[in-house]
Amino acid sequence: MCGIVGYIGEKEAQPILLEGLSKLEYRGYDSAGVAIFNGEWIRVEKSKGRLVDLEGKLKSAGLSGNVGIGHTRWATHGKPSDQNSHPHTDEQSQFAVVHNGIIENYLELKEELIGKGYTFTSETDTEVIAKLLADLNDGDLVSTVQKAVARLHGAYALGVLSVKEPGRLVAVRYASPLVIGLGNGENFIASDIPAILKHTRDVYILEDGEMAILEKDRVQLMKIDGTPVERDTLRVTWDLDKAEKSGYEHFMLKEIYEQPKAIQDTMASRISQEQVDLSQEISLSSQVIQQIDKVQFVACGTAYHAGLVGKYVFEDLTRIPVEVDIASEYRYRNPIITERTLVIVISQSGETADTLAALREAKKAGATVLAITNVVGSSVAREADQVLITWAGPEIAVASTKAYTSQLIAIYLLGTYFAQMRGTCTVEDAKQIVSELTRLPQRVEAILEQSAKIKDFAAQIVNHEHLFFLGRGLDYAVALEGSLKLKEISYIHSEAYAAGELKHGTLALIEEGIPVISLATQRAVYEKMVSNIQEVKARGAYLLGLTVEGDQELQKSVDAVLHLPETLDILSPVLAVVPLQLVAYYACVARGFDVDKPRNLAKSVTVE
Amino acid sequence: MCGIVGYIGEKEAQPILLEGLSKLEYRGYDSAGVAIFNGEWIRVEKSKGRLVDLEGKLKSAGLSGNVGIGHTRWATHGKPSDQNSHPHTDEQSQFAVVHNGIIENYLELKEELIGKGYTFTSETDTEVIAKLLADLNDGDLVSTVQKAVARLHGAYALGVLSVKEPGRLVAVRYASPLVIGLGNGENFIASDIPAILKHTRDVYILEDGEMAILEKDRVQLMKIDGTPVERDTLRVTWDLDKAEKSGYEHFMLKEIYEQPKAIQDTMASRISQEQVDLSQEISLSSQVIQQIDKVQFVACGTAYHAGLVGKYVFEDLTRIPVEVDIASEYRYRNPIITERTLVIVISQSGETADTLAALREAKKAGATVLAITNVVGSSVAREADQVLITWAGPEIAVASTKAYTSQLIAIYLLGTYFAQMRGTCTVEDAKQIVSELTRLPQRVEAILEQSAKIKDFAAQIVNHEHLFFLGRGLDYAVALEGSLKLKEISYIHSEAYAAGELKHGTLALIEEGIPVISLATQRAVYEKMVSNIQEVKARGAYLLGLTVEGDQELQKSVDAVLHLPETLDILSPVLAVVPLQLVAYYACVARGFDVDKPRNLAKSVTVE
Repeated sequence: MCGIVGYIGEKEAQPILLEGLSKLEYRGYDSAGVAIFNGEWIRVEKSKGRLVDLEGKLKSAGLSGNVGIGHTRWATHGKPSDQNSHPHTDEQSQFAVVHNGIIENYLELKEELIGKGYTFTSETDTEVIAKLLADLNDGDLVSTVQKAVARLHGAYALGVLSVKEPGRLVAVRYASPLVIGLGNGENFIASDIPAILKHTRDVYILEDGEMAILEKDRVQLMKIDGTPVERDTLRVTWDLDKAEKSGYEHFMLKEIYEQPKAIQDTMASRISQEQVDLSQEISLSSQVIQQIDKVQFVACGTAYHAGLVGKYVFEDLTRIPVEVDIASEYRYRNPIITERTLVIVISQSGETADTLAALREAKKAGATVLAITNVVGSSVAREADQVLITWAGPEIAVASTKAYTSQLIAIYLLGTYFAQMRGTCTVEDAKQIVSELTRLPQRVEAILEQSAKIKDFAAQIVNHEHLFFLGRGLDYAVALEGSLKLKEISYIHSEAYAAGELKHGTLALIEEGIPVISLATQRAVYEKMVSNIQEVKARGAYLLGLTVEGDQELQKSVDAVLHLPETLDILSPVLAVVPLQLVAYYACVARGFDVDKPRNLAKSVTVE
Repeated sequence: MCGIVGYIGEKEAQPILLEGLSKLEYRGYDSAGVAIFNGEWIRVEKSKGRLVDLEGKLKSAGLSGNVGIGHTRWATHGKPSDQNSHPHTDEQSQFAVVHNGIIENYLELKEELIGKGYTFTSETDTEVIAKLLADLNDGDLVSTVQKAVARLHGAYALGVLSVKEPGRLVAVRYASPLVIGLGNGENFIASDIPAILKHTRDVYILEDGEMAILEKDRVQLMKIDGTPVERDTLRVTWDLDKAEKSGYEHFMLKEIYEQPKAIQDTMASRISQEQVDLSQEISLSSQVIQQIDKVQFVACGTAYHAGLVGKYVFEDLTRIPVEVDIASEYRYRNPIITERTLVIVISQSGETADTLAALREAKKAGATVLAITNVVGSSVAREADQVLITWAGPEIAVASTKAYTSQLIAIYLLGTYFAQMRGTCTVEDAKQIVSELTRLPQRVEAILEQSAKIKDFAAQIVNHEHLFFLGRGLDYAVALEGSLKLKEISYIHSEAYAAGELKHGTLALIEEGIPVISLATQRAVYEKMVSNIQEVKARGAYLLGLTVEGDQELQKSVDAVLHLPETLDILSPVLAVVPLQLVAYYACVARGFDVDKPRNLAKSVTVE
């Protein structure tokens, strides 16, 4: 995780770095720091806590200078503390380093450096880099960095300053994102574009194994071994305003309410004459699509839950066997892949480290890789063979909402498109799915209009520390996502169960008053679901039931019921998840926690 | 769930029924009851709570008579209460019924009967049957039962008495187990053999859609439509003693300590000349085995967790793609099955309703079905095409232990056998696996010798209501099982995570002092696992680490460490699960709960 920024130019670096870091807090926010070079020495200020704590420290005694680096941290090695905050330096403060990623061999390097007499003040892997730079210092910043990087195993985006070279800032990327911003008499580095968008729209996106040497009037790109790299600048056309809250109290609530538009935007250009047409984006021939004999969805967290829906959808529509894997598991389990395997990776940010690594494994093994991602130009988008963008717009809240429903839409589009190509659904079936898809935005609106009722339900659960979700089939996949939302922001220990599985152990945890949220939107298993609801009801659970408009039965068995608009069973996840997002949101607000920045979590998980 | 017994003969029925019910408490124990017919009228006594509560009621005023039925209940419709206990009768007590199963259309039938003026005293589905018998009464018990059963949808094993026919007891089976015991001048019905083993070893196993008419000197079998059925009696050869605690404080502890023997027994006759030989039991030709292009493991609860290990083992050894499904999900999701699909169902009891239904679905769709089960002659064993018995012996504790490790052994044997046949492992590889398999019993012994240390760790967690398990790969599969054990009996809300997935949401729940049990037995992901351990450690978690003998690193990062004997990575689940079983056991004892009979749960889940 973590966010890094850097500045070199003629202005005061401090305010530019702090403003940049404020746009990167979604990448981590347990501590922050800056190192500023005034031409003579490098001074560091850092602080545990939010960026505002660092700003407080700098208010009384600011740092002056025209070159600097900054960091906002999400702890991996060592707890959040002043000592563990970045930047890190060597003992003489010759070098200052900010780092995003994990150095896997840091313990080994640390022992070696301690053996040589270096002393460490933090528990981080990053401090090893600063000491290593001092140890390998040959008087030239660039070649010293090259030598140090050659010793590192793991993932890193680095910004490095040297007290000997006032006019230079060096950046290196390996398996962690980094962009270079090109200004007029000034240049920038950052983990993500919003951090520099106020200053420039012209950027280079650094690739793995590359470094950049920034001077105020010049940027040189090269491979780590020194081979020069030529790259066109990329012009960023989107607007920072999109990342604002537009009047909502929290980004998450704003993003929940943006779902009708996100769904609409993700479908819009892909439906033609009542059929799905992805031929402008997916360059797989009908023949190739017909030869696919296995689909593997690979993702993490919420995107993994979208993949679970994908299994039902693809198997149902295309009759291709589907596996769904957690990316961190997939990449190490030697998965069975052939040339006829299609791997579909899903990542909102397109930078999720495990998903990216899984993508690379799958490609190496000969699979075709298709990415569903929300970020154009992200690593996942660049490296996949095929890309389907979800047009949800920037998602800032750590708890994903509109990205998830947009991923579902991408999956429906893809599933229907493949089914059309493979002849596993008729023109009429496809028409029906398309027609129901296009009605989803208004149906989500209808659920959002019931928010007062959902808020009332959330009020019933806020004093509980345990909660269960139940569902069968697609409802189970949605239950998992609803449970994750609640955990992430309300810190209620919730858990989702396939309803038929509860009695194989977990039913022991159900006691008087425990809230249970039961989804009963799938007609084929409706009766079985009611039986399971009776089982938990008999143990005294407090039940919220989700069912479909017109059902008058469920309310007899539950304490509160919410009716969702009618749609095809297969499409119901898009509707069923919305009240669950709102339950999590209102529970979090009522419990007084920070909705958009839950403890311990960061938005884009770029470490493993 | 539920257990039913019935007696007809010349002795007093009451003590025979109570003794039989005591052997069936593993099927449910939230209430119990008996109905006894003295030749003139039927009297019922029933009570919420354990069997001992019913016995207390009967001590002061026993019921006399030579015909009777009894029931031990596990609530599905309606809470445990005196009213909801079985047997149920009609308003005039003309008929008495005990029932195991679920009547799915009971609400509809209930409304119809209420419309006719019947009044109900319980919330159960079963009472509907008693009232239906009264409503359809044509003066003949057998034909009245036939008419009533024709109206029922769902699963049922029934025992029925009629006040008009003192010399008869009628039993019906559909999708719930039922055996008929044949005595000398007396006959019996029971949900399972132990209930009648004291009186006879000669039994009929009733099949779906059959009924039995018991008189004291005669038993007639027929289909529900009256077609006579001929069946050989089955002679039970195993001994009731096996189901005793042999000096351990609880069945669960006894069964944990029986694991070396269970593992040994499950392997013994299946290894020959350092290779696996299943040809005496599995009648699949080498050609058929080579043509299998997909394996689907289907199971519930603990057996499902064995299936998760099965995926790793089979994919690794045989390179056949494997899916693992929860049975209650599999049967409704229209799975993709061809003639080259092998479905492996796993069920300790062989009576798990969802697993049995999944087995039937798979067979209907053309798959070959292989069953791994602990009970010879169980429904699953009888209906599968191929059977591999786990020789773990009777498992009485609700929380499964030795059945699980024996299921793992069956999976290793099967995986290795298939790999030998398919040529995906060399003779030397197979030799190595076999050699390590045969060492597992002594290695499990070595872990059991560390029980004092494990007890100490358990003492650290007893006051916590939340706990997490972490693992990668096979360690993740074991973590899921460890977590289930803890939930089932200690009622601590524990949850297992793929270690790389934690930071995608659930990390928000980790706070100071929360216990986390981390498994690090898999060499290929050891370093990644240590990184994940650092992440939770940085949030203040209290960590127990499981690693392999000789590892001196993990103890630097955790609060307590337990070393497992060395074995092949692929076999480590058999060892790693043992300390987790003991942690759950000691935590349960320390918290003062009933180890062998956890609340809300029953041993063999024969309802959906």
